[in-house]
Amino acid sequence: MDRDIPSAALLVVGTEVLTAKVQDENGPYAARALRDAGLWLATVCTLPDQVDAIVEAVDRERRRRTWVFTSGGIGPTHDDVTVAAVARALGRPLRRHPELEAILREGHERWTGSREVPEPVLRMADVPEGTRLAGGGFPCLQVENVVMLPGVPQFFRAQLERFLPALAEPPFRLAILFLGLGEDRIAEALEEVARAYPDVDIGSYPRFDEADHRVKVTLECKDVARVGAAREALLARLPPGAVLRSEGP
Amino acid sequence: MDRDIPSAALLVVGTEVLTAKVQDENGPYAARALRDAGLWLATVCTLPDQVDAIVEAVDRERRRRTWVFTSGGIGPTHDDVTVAAVARALGRPLRRHPELEAILREGHERWTGSREVPEPVLRMADVPEGTRLAGGGFPCLQVENVVMLPGVPQFFRAQLERFLPALAEPPFRLAILFLGLGEDRIAEALEEVARAYPDVDIGSYPRFDEADHRVKVTLECKDVARVGAAREALLARLPPGAVLRSEGP
Repeated sequence: MDRDIPSAALLVVGTEVLTAKVQDENGPYAARALRDAGLWLATVCTLPDQVDAIVEAVDRERRRRTWVFTSGGIGPTHDDVTVAAVARALGRPLRRHPELEAILREGHERWTGSREVPEPVLRMADVPEGTRLAGGGFPCLQVENVVMLPGVPQFFRAQLERFLPALAEPPFRLAILFLGLGEDRIAEALEEVARAYPDVDIGSYPRFDEADHRVKVTLECKDVARVGAAREALLARLPPGAVLRSEGP
Repeated sequence: MDRDIPSAALLVVGTEVLTAKVQDENGPYAARALRDAGLWLATVCTLPDQVDAIVEAVDRERRRRTWVFTSGGIGPTHDDVTVAAVARALGRPLRRHPELEAILREGHERWTGSREVPEPVLRMADVPEGTRLAGGGFPCLQVENVVMLPGVPQFFRAQLERFLPALAEPPFRLAILFLGLGEDRIAEALEEVARAYPDVDIGSYPRFDEADHRVKVTLECKDVARVGAAREALLARLPPGAVLRSEGP
């Protein structure tokens, strides 16, 4: 893996996911969206709605990733602790953000018809000092390299889609080989090629069901010529007829 | 949350998940299975097939959780690095496990008809010194409080189902209220009850779609009387008619 590729971590804040009340949709969606944007998603961690757990993970990941995205925990109730945790992880005080407060007041009036905004809603405007509002509608909250997104899937997707285009990087290039042999027969060849092409990510995924193949091998990196060269090197080491079909560049 | 409840971490080892080639099924399955077994799943982290990343996560989680489960990375190819990483995290050398070697030899012969076992397959028997084989078939590999499970979903499920019954703990008890009000209207009541019942996990999940309710509130702990008391305390603070329906004890 090329260490120069911008990396990302996703922190899914959700006791409801860990306690099996809800199945997370944002992790799989972000994996696809970040991949398409040419970013290397280095980890996804699901965390409980607990300040200490979130502070520790944000602090760990922000130092080593280009971007840290959080999902969830930005609403008005007692279990919404992501924003306070990010503030603490970054060592920044919470400050009421006037522009965000105006957005919340306007949204509350449109949604409820009332101009009287409960204090828990206004507290959603208390964000880490220096927070930038990115995107329209209810905005992404960005401070340093941390981007806080909502947990509700339709809002998570909308905000990520507004945020990613500005980051667009060269795409990954992927070749796939579907093999009729088991992993035991190809392990040595794969190991040799992986050693010779350390910049190409080579994955081996066995199947034990009724699929038409036994193993799917993937070869991936941003340089299409290197993907092709690694594939040729692997083909030269496999027994004749091992490849049932292939995809990619 | 009661800190005496046995806790677990799940580490999903899978570059294929992070690169959006495969959607993880083992995390959601384990969340349900561990919950049903009365364990508190404290985190799920998806990691790349990289020794350093796995060593760090195993080392971090094993010190603070009752159990650490890993998923994936235990096969014969170059990208199967979980077992070596666990050995390093625990400071234990890799040793060939005679009983595991016999299981692998027998399985290979049954699967391929050949008694000649490739070296990469035999290397699957090189496990951290002191590893215990739990369960039948291809076994769970357990060393200290770390349990290594396969990534292929049908094998992951089968092995987890063999492992969990011995741990069975008292179940969690869950009450659910479906409300016709938005979170802005209930946030203060929730906060008061959450403060008064710190041993009861209280979650608030808003809906912004065509569902018949605006917010689902969950109240959960192992003591059914505390769940009931927290629910009564919340009902006493909500406006009349707020609850559309309810579930649970």
